[in-house]
Formats: sequence, structure tokens, C-alpha cells
Amino acid sequence: MTLQVGVIGAGLMGTTHVRTLTTTVAGAQVAAIADAVPEAGRRLGDEAGVETTYTDPHALIEDAGVDAVIVASPGDTHEELVLACLEAGKPVLCEKPLATTVSSAQRLLETEAAVGRRLIQLGFMRRFDPGYQVLKARLDAGDAGEPVIAYSTHRNPAVPPGFDSEMIIKDTVVHDVDTVRWLLGQELVRAAVLRPRVTSRAAPGTQDPQIVLFETDRGVHVNVEAFVNAGYGYDIGCEIVGENGVLTLQPPAGAALRTDGAARTSIPMGFQERFAAAVQGSAAGPDAWDGYAAAAVCEAAWQALRTGRPVEVELIAKPDLYAGALGLIGHN
Amino acid sequence: MTLQVGVIGAGLMGTTHVRTLTTTVAGAQVAAIADAVPEAGRRLGDEAGVETTYTDPHALIEDAGVDAVIVASPGDTHEELVLACLEAGKPVLCEKPLATTVSSAQRLLETEAAVGRRLIQLGFMRRFDPGYQVLKARLDAGDAGEPVIAYSTHRNPAVPPGFDSEMIIKDTVVHDVDTVRWLLGQELVRAAVLRPRVTSRAAPGTQDPQIVLFETDRGVHVNVEAFVNAGYGYDIGCEIVGENGVLTLQPPAGAALRTDGAARTSIPMGFQERFAAAVQGSAAGPDAWDGYAAAAVCEAAWQALRTGRPVEVELIAKPDLYAGALGLIGHN
Amino acid sequence: MTLQVGVIGAGLMGTTHVRTLTTTVAGAQVAAIADAVPEAGRRLGDEAGVETTYTDPHALIEDAGVDAVIVASPGDTHEELVLACLEAGKPVLCEKPLATTVSSAQRLLETEAAVGRRLIQLGFMRRFDPGYQVLKARLDAGDAGEPVIAYSTHRNPAVPPGFDSEMIIKDTVVHDVDTVRWLLGQELVRAAVLRPRVTSRAAPGTQDPQIVLFETDRGVHVNVEAFVNAGYGYDIGCEIVGENGVLTLQPPAGAALRTDGAARTSIPMGFQERFAAAVQGSAAGPDAWDGYAAAAVCEAAWQALRTGRPVEVELIAKPDLYAGALGLIGHN
Amino acid sequence: MTLQVGVIGAGLMGTTHVRTLTTTVAGAQVAAIADAVPEAGRRLGDEAGVETTYTDPHALIEDAGVDAVIVASPGDTHEELVLACLEAGKPVLCEKPLATTVSSAQRLLETEAAVGRRLIQLGFMRRFDPGYQVLKARLDAGDAGEPVIAYSTHRNPAVPPGFDSEMIIKDTVVHDVDTVRWLLGQELVRAAVLRPRVTSRAAPGTQDPQIVLFETDRGVHVNVEAFVNAGYGYDIGCEIVGENGVLTLQPPAGAALRTDGAARTSIPMGFQERFAAAVQGSAAGPDAWDGYAAAAVCEAAWQALRTGRPVEVELIAKPDLYAGALGLIGHN
Repeated sequence: MTLQVGVIGAGLMGTTHVRTLTTTVAGAQVAAIADAVPEAGRRLGDEAGVETTYTDPHALIEDAGVDAVIVASPGDTHEELVLACLEAGKPVLCEKPLATTVSSAQRLLETEAAVGRRLIQLGFMRRFDPGYQVLKARLDAGDAGEPVIAYSTHRNPAVPPGFDSEMIIKDTVVHDVDTVRWLLGQELVRAAVLRPRVTSRAAPGTQDPQIVLFETDRGVHVNVEAFVNAGYGYDIGCEIVGENGVLTLQPPAGAALRTDGAARTSIPMGFQERFAAAVQGSAAGPDAWDGYAAAAVCEAAWQALRTGRPVEVELIAKPDLYAGALGLIGHN
Repeated sequence: MTLQVGVIGAGLMGTTHVRTLTTTVAGAQVAAIADAVPEAGRRLGDEAGVETTYTDPHALIEDAGVDAVIVASPGDTHEELVLACLEAGKPVLCEKPLATTVSSAQRLLETEAAVGRRLIQLGFMRRFDPGYQVLKARLDAGDAGEPVIAYSTHRNPAVPPGFDSEMIIKDTVVHDVDTVRWLLGQELVRAAVLRPRVTSRAAPGTQDPQIVLFETDRGVHVNVEAFVNAGYGYDIGCEIVGENGVLTLQPPAGAALRTDGAARTSIPMGFQERFAAAVQGSAAGPDAWDGYAAAAVCEAAWQALRTGRPVEVELIAKPDLYAGALGLIGHN
Repeated sequence: MTLQVGVIGAGLMGTTHVRTLTTTVAGAQVAAIADAVPEAGRRLGDEAGVETTYTDPHALIEDAGVDAVIVASPGDTHEELVLACLEAGKPVLCEKPLATTVSSAQRLLETEAAVGRRLIQLGFMRRFDPGYQVLKARLDAGDAGEPVIAYSTHRNPAVPPGFDSEMIIKDTVVHDVDTVRWLLGQELVRAAVLRPRVTSRAAPGTQDPQIVLFETDRGVHVNVEAFVNAGYGYDIGCEIVGENGVLTLQPPAGAALRTDGAARTSIPMGFQERFAAAVQGSAAGPDAWDGYAAAAVCEAAWQALRTGRPVEVELIAKPDLYAGALGLIGHN
Repeated sequence: MTLQVGVIGAGLMGTTHVRTLTTTVAGAQVAAIADAVPEAGRRLGDEAGVETTYTDPHALIEDAGVDAVIVASPGDTHEELVLACLEAGKPVLCEKPLATTVSSAQRLLETEAAVGRRLIQLGFMRRFDPGYQVLKARLDAGDAGEPVIAYSTHRNPAVPPGFDSEMIIKDTVVHDVDTVRWLLGQELVRAAVLRPRVTSRAAPGTQDPQIVLFETDRGVHVNVEAFVNAGYGYDIGCEIVGENGVLTLQPPAGAALRTDGAARTSIPMGFQERFAAAVQGSAAGPDAWDGYAAAAVCEAAWQALRTGRPVEVELIAKPDLYAGALGLIGHN
């Protein structure tokens, strides 16, 4: 009864998935790997003891020995590949983004809704981080009362060349969008972006840091700070201010060192280290509606940055298939 | 050579000043107390062993035995009383606000500039808090690099009846305005206000919490959260994000208690407790320019809240008397 | 190539192992369960989807479908069952204690040494806790310099009836003994026990708390506080004082809540919660020498408590099979 | 009604007292300074604006313009000078130690008891530290329940040449002795000393660190770690374990800096910085009985270190003058 998983994409995320499935996930194993570059797929297959490799991802999806698919290839291939999984009737875990445009995300959503089964899951791993889970549990228990303000801070030490202002929203802020939607169980309905003084570490023409302001459908104010050239570490913060109190995400600390006139704890330098404990939880999680909503919210934020004006988020009516999704997921 | 101080106003702040001068400040003592209500002044005088009390504050200012004056009477008396002190050539510590309108603050500023001596000092006590002073010292040392974003969080457990949306800006946010101006050594030049979902603890018609957004003359984004019915405590936060790192104010903790399944530290319920260590420092500090600038910035924020639009801060040219003030104070 | 594991004992620890193997460990699955009470084994088997159950643990060990064994039955059965595993040549993970007397632990050690393969692993899970691992890594990196003092604090909210002074040492302190031996890579060679005022929560005749003092073969002083009726939580502390600095274990926090005048983080109430992240790491770890040394050290501590005098730890010469064990494990 | 204070000793502690009295203590001023070295007294007098200086401390004590005396000269002069103050009937704040031998401390105690007025106060400043005061208040409020164990950690970055094993007990541990006596309101009645591996930073022949174990008259176990060549900072820790919970002293933090992959807070390098907020409180405090008891306890600890055996503390019956002292002080 072991689940046979096919992994598309042998890059950073695909490799992470293969290693996790091979070493720490019970009840699943990697049956096949696909990558457009034959050597990349082959090398990862060798490392993990997986014999079947493909260069054509569709061949992997159609492989009868593959029960479920992980899509970890570049974002512009996601729509086509997730669609193929839907047609094959196979569950698919899609790394974000679900699609590169809101309309293509919407198409996937509507196709899945027509199929009538929730086959798509999005790879937003923060929901499985122990710290976020404690925060969510206490929030749902009412410990802080009704939320009024949410802060989400997303700082990276550095980004690769070419990581521009739009990517800061669509590749970085998208995680904060998903986290806040999940924590609050509310949709984000309005976006605006502030442009602080640009750090000298940013590439020319890139707005970094950005303050992205959202409003939810219940009036909660959401403040997302995205600072991708922060230099000092991969530092994720979250604070929910409620009518009766405040919940603050605590960083995993490990051990403190006092030496040379200071007490210090380490800050990780990347998401793999920060969210190491979150990966294995990905057997359940965000669905196609979450992927669609995140795409629509980030598109609005991007238009807000581009035009310098607040932008309303336009969402289609939620298909019945996803009824209650936010709330239910909130209580998983 | 003990400084003889006259205190105007026997309310909360006046009483605090009298007690501090009597018990913990070297080189100064209370020579006289004035309050419009004779019994109030008399009672405080009895407590502190001060024989001279007045109902007319001008009589106190003119008293030859009074070297310096503390104005702790209601805000609408400040302009007149500070002016009288300037005319008498006596140093005056004025509780905030310096005046209730920008134009009256400006008049005081210009009068002092004409006198040519810095006689006015504002009662912004946070600058003397040990935590803020460490933060300032490290910021000035360049530990975090050039600032790009500043957060200032101001939460009160509750406010008295009648404390409305305008007072949240002019009595509460005014402290954050002074703190951020001092920490950064920059002027705030633009204000906007966001209106999150209102807490059910707020009085009808009051916008609480408020997110007040400022921009400095060097492009730093400043985010002030004012939440005066936060219920849980008097909780002051400050974080400066720089190009190389982040500085965060640490709350004074005292002792931690682990019991009943939780580790906890106390949060004070008022500013007297939170800033107990800050009071005695008030022998040097913010001047009339700081008072004027704070008034102008808060007026802009209030107009931004009222109109729902960003408002530019209009400042007159800084008189030579205050040249370099922000920077100098920064290095005190 | 999945490892087929047989689990002996369907109590608390056995159930924990079955669930972990079933849900979160890759490359292994439960092939059989044995428990003297048929219903207990059957119920756990049903829960985990394991068909083969035994009442005779020897039948499980001899089952050709079982590749490796977990011994989670009562401590007085350990010697016999581990011995059977050695004879069958099967790897065995033995919950502590390895045996109930030093001499029986020594017999197991010598039998394994005669077999010439390291088949025995002890279930000291703290070595796999992320916090301890960070502490160990920093210690080995020399961040604190050469250790001079070690503190290990072990507080339980409460213990079951019958948990007496000897069990506090042999069931509770034994974990601290293993942790400190592993962290320092040094043997404990002398034990003494102090008897503080007994808490009113302790059962009559039980010495709780106890301060157990050890000395290592390199002169490091080790202070273990065991307080098993501490009431407030399951609270584990560790601090290593070195010549250049101090390393302190940080508790996993998750999220902090500020409400009602206090900032608080939760303290877990049991080891399952505290060391949730540690279980899955148990594929490698402490060996029979560690089990023997822990037994010898705890026996010395027990004699020290009983007699009120310091007691030397007597260890046999380490068989070659375990040469370098402490050091090597230290660098895993 | 200003108190006129005479300060004997113009060294580190005397200078600290003069500055504190001059700048931050209300109701007192420095009337005279005495130092055996004329230039030293003169220089400090000039700095502080004090005209009267003496080389003979008895002349200062007899000066009719001196209401009270601070003795901050070398320890071997304390007995004689405090005795002179008692004879002159003037209150005296004596820096520790009260005297260099238990018998001379006892003589002072008995002389004061015969005079029948509490004129002697000891300079144990930790009692006035805000953190210790919060800890004491919570302990007295019963938040942790009845104490069973106390930890006091005393680490210095380094000590001057000649600071030997005996001084570690009599000049360093003496502070922990006073703090624990005050916190618990209990006498220490038995001492033993453990000798961990000596740090390579220690001067030859010096036992550093030391673990000094005390037992109180109610059976509380007290563990004092004195590590005076700890290198990394002046780091003071205190933890009281009670039947219902644990109270831990929190270090004053100021601001945290996140940069270069770590979050850090500063550790002070000396007691002046660590206990800056404690000095001004010294208007009330430990009395001659506290000084005598500290001397007796430290003498017992020193004998325990010297002989390698536990030593009982011998205290005379407490004179009526000090009846209830520990308890009363505890509730100041």
C-alpha cells in the first residue's frame, strides 16, 4: 500500500522532495523522476535509488506505476502539467505558483471543480511549521480574541540575479499571503504597496524592501514586509494582534551561546533550514482555491506596486467543491 | 546651588514630577506648586513638604524663588504659560503637547528663537528609557546599517472616556513621532492613516486601532500602530530595520515565572511602571523644535485620518537656534 | 528494501514506536507486535494495520519476517530479550534501561563484544532533539571552549504512584547521564547526591528533588537536578559552561501570547510533547556501551543517595568493539 | 534638611558613591571626603565640588558637618572606622566586608547591639536591582510556592592579579550569600565546596571556577557557581525552584540586534554597568547582622574549600535589636 510518487523537476525543490520522500516520509516512495535535462534527472535518480527517469513529464504522468505527482518544474510549466494530472485523475502536489497568471489558475480551479475531486495541493510549507501550528491553534482557541491586525515579515539574506520587484511579490509575498489567509481564515480583498527607501544591496531598478498592505474581507489590516536583500539571514516573523491579546511566532532557537560580551542565537540563512521540520507535514494542505486566491491577491499587489494605487482583489465565486475550505483547513 | 523648581498642575503628571524631584533627583527641589484648584495644590504640597502654593500659575512663574518651571497643566494652557516663562527668561519643562495647534507651537518656537536661548524642553520621556538609549547607541554606531523601515507599536490597556480618534494621534502617537524622529535623526514629511477593523472595546465612533504611516525626509518608511484599548497591557515596541540588520527594543523583564504549564513575564499596565527608569533623565532633552515638529506631524496625521488621504507635513525653515538639533540630541 | 521491524511491548513506549514507524519513518514498517496480554497486542496491531501478533516475545524475535526488534517491554525482561536478539543476530533497539543491574548490562555488553557486531542500540531519544543537536554542534565546534561545568535540569509535573527515590535516579537521571556523557564525550567517574528539603508533593519516603553531582574523567563538574513532582511542567534544561563561554539549551517555543498583563509561552506536560521532534531520529544512536555506562553511573548515584557518601563509578575496560564510541557518536 | 555625607576612600567604590550622591540622589550631598593619599581625595573633591577633604578618616567622622559616613576604604580598615562611627553615633554605610574576620564582625555587631540603634548598613547593592526586586516580590507573593532549591551564578570576565581562591569566596561569593539570605529570608547553616576542572585562564594555584553548596536552616539547597575568569562577561544568574514553580532572574537587555546570521543582546563587562540601576536604592538595606552572617558563612565556605569537607556555620544568637531582620527586610 505504499504510495508511488513521480517527481517532475530535479532542481532545488524537486531534489528536496525526493530526499524527503526517501528518508523521512512513511508510506510513500519515489517511483519516477522527470527532468528536461536527462543528466539532472539521472543524477538525482542515482542518488535516491530511483531507476525510472523521463525527460518528458507527460510520460511520467501517464506512467501506470505512478500514483501521484509532484510538480517542481519551472512555474511556466505548471498549468500544463497540473492539467495533465487532472486529466489523468492523479493527485498532484504543485509547488507554488499554481500558475503564472490569475486566469490560468482560474482555469485549473474550474477544471478541478468540473472533475469534482480535490486532486490539487499547493506546496505552501509554512502551514506545517510547528511554530505556525501552535500560533494557529492558539488563535483558533480564541486566546488573542478577534484579530484586528496581522504582521508578516519575510526577510531573505539575498536573492539570485534577476529577482525583480514583481518576483518579490509573486515568489516571496505569496507565502505571506497564504500564511495569513490560512491563519485568519479570511480572504484578502484589497492591496496597496509602499516603497521605502531602497537598500543599497538591491539590484538597480528593484524595489526592495516593500511594504505590502492588505485588507481582509472582515476588515483586518495585514502588513507584509518583504525584504529580500536583508543580508543578515532568512528571518520570518508573524504577529497577530487580537482584541484580547497578541500572538507572536517564536523562532526555533536550539541553543544560546554567551561569549565575547554577547548572548546570541543563530538565524538560519535559508528556508530549508528554517522550515526543516515543516516539509514532512505536506501530506495534507492548501488546495487549488488557495493557489488561485494567492495568485489573484499577488496580481493585485503587483498592480498596486506598478501603479502606485490600491487595487481591489477580484475573486470568482468559490465553487462548491471548496466550500468551507479556509475554515476547515484552519482546523486541520 | 540647588535648582528651585516651580510645578504648575497638581494632576497625574504634576504629582509624578513633584515626587521624582523630591525623592530621586539630585541638585533640584520643589519650591512652589500651582493648581487652579486650591485643595489639589495644597494636598500635593503637604505630601511633598512644599509650603508655597498658588492658584494663579503666573504668580508662580514670577516668584523670584523659582528658578525653573514645569508645566503640567491641561494642554490648552500650555501656550500661555510657556510664553510667560519665556518672557520671564526661565527654563521651562513643558509636558506634551507644546501647544494645541501647530500655529501656536510655531509662535512659541519663534518667540524662543527671538529670545535666542533654548529655554523650552518637552516632556518626551522615552528618550531617557535605558532600552531606547541602548537601541539609539547601537543604531548610531551603525550596527544595523542605514535604516530603511521603522516600526513603533503603542498599545494601552484602556483609555478614559472621551479619548477619541484625534486624541489617539495627538496624545498617543505623538510619543512615537518624537521617538522615531530622535532615533533616526530625520524629519517625518508625509502621513497617512489606515483604519483596521475597530476593536469591540473601543468607544463608539472611535477608530482604534490605527495604523499611522509616515515617510521621512530620507525615504524611511515608518509604521506606527496605536491601539489604545488593547486590554492586555501597556506594551511599547520598536524595531528599526537597516540595510545590515535589525534592532529591536527589549521589554524590561525583571524575573520570569514558570508555573502551571507556562513561562511568563509581566507586562506593565501603565507608562509610570514601564518608563519608571526614564523619568530621572529629564534634565536634558527634546526642545521647542521637537515640540513644534511633533505638533505639525500629528496634525498632518489627524488630517490624513479625517480625510482618508495622505497628507504632507508642512514645516517652517528651522531657526538657527535649533541648527543640528536632531543630530546633536541623537548623540547625547 | 523496507526494514521489517518487530515491536515487543504494546504499552506507552511500544505504542509510540509503532505509530512513529507507521506514520513518519521512511524505509521501515512494523511486521509484528508482541505483548504478554493478547488483547493489548491485538488492539495495537489493529490500529496500525499489523496482522502478526504474538504473546511470546521469543516467537517474534525468531520470526524470519522480522529484520530488527524494538524492546519496549518492562525493564526486567530486557536482559533476556536483548540476549535473544544477539543470539538471533538481529539489531535491537532497547528502551532504557539496557538491564536492571550493572552486572546484567555488563553481560550483554560482553556478549555483543564477543559476537563482534554492534547490534544493540539504546532508546535515549534526547540525542536526537534538534535543540540538543545544535548545542552539541556548537560545543564540538569549540564555541564555548573547553567545558568546566555542566548543568542538567530534569523536572516532571508528577510521577505515578510507586515512583520512588531509586527510580528517580535509574529512570529519570539516567537520561541526564546519557545526555551529559554524549555532549561532553567524557565518562562520569564519581557520584554524590544532595537531599534538599522535600517538596510536599512527594510521596512519603521519597527524596524529591535530588541534586546529583557527578565528576567526569576530565574533571568537569556535572550538576543534575531531578525534580519529578515539580508540578508546573515537563521542563528540561541544559547548560554547559566552558572556558570561553556558555551554551544553553533553548526550549521550543512555538508562539508567545501576550494577554492579561503577561507574556507567556507554553511548557509541555510530558516527554512525548517535548521531544516530539526527536523520535524519528532514532535510526542511529547510543550503543550497548552507553547503556552499560549509564547503568553503572546510576547505580553509583543510587548508592551515593542510599549511603549519603560520594561513590566511585566502576567501569570495566571498554571492549575494542566500542573504541572511540563516545567521540564518534559525538560527531554524528 | 539635606543629609550631609562624608565619604572615606577615594578609590573605585568611593568615587562611585560620590558621583551617585552628587548626580542622582535627592536629599543628600557630599560634605567631606577622606583618603590616605591627599591627592586622591583632593582630585575627587575637585571633580564633585566638595571643598572639605581629609587624610585622617577619624577627622571626617568627627566633623560636626558630617551627618553620616560611607566607608569605602580597604577592608582591613573597616572594623576600626565603623567602630568610630558607632562611637560618634553616626549612621554608616560600610562597603563589604563589614570586617575581615568573623570575630571582628561579631564585635561590631555586639557594639551596635549595646548602643541599641541600627546605625550600620552594608553595601550589598544587588538587593536594589530592579530584577532582583521583582523576583523577591513574586517569591514573597508565593508565586513559586515554598522554595526547595536556589541557584546563584556569579561570573566575571576576569579578576586583578592576586585575586586568589579565598577572595573568590570572601569578595565574590559573599554577594551571592547576601542575595540568597535576603531572597529566602533564611540563614545558611552549612557549606561545602566542589572543585571543578580549573580554567586555563586562572592564575596558578587558584581554584576557579568553584561550586559552593549551602544548606539553609529550612533545608533549602543553595548552589553558588563562582567563575571569576569566565572571560565572556559579567553575568549574574539567579533561579529559585519552589514547590509550585520556578522564578528566574532576567538580564536587562535593552535592545536586540539581528545581524550576520545571529540575534544577540549585550552582556555587560562589569558590575557598574550591570547594577547601574541598583545604586540609588541604597537608602535602606542590609544591616550589621547581615554583614556578620555573611562573614560567618563565607568563613565556613573558605574552610570547606581549604579542608575539602563540609563545614557548619556557627552563628551567635541574634541580638534583639535585629529581631525579625531577615523577614522584615524581605518585605521592604
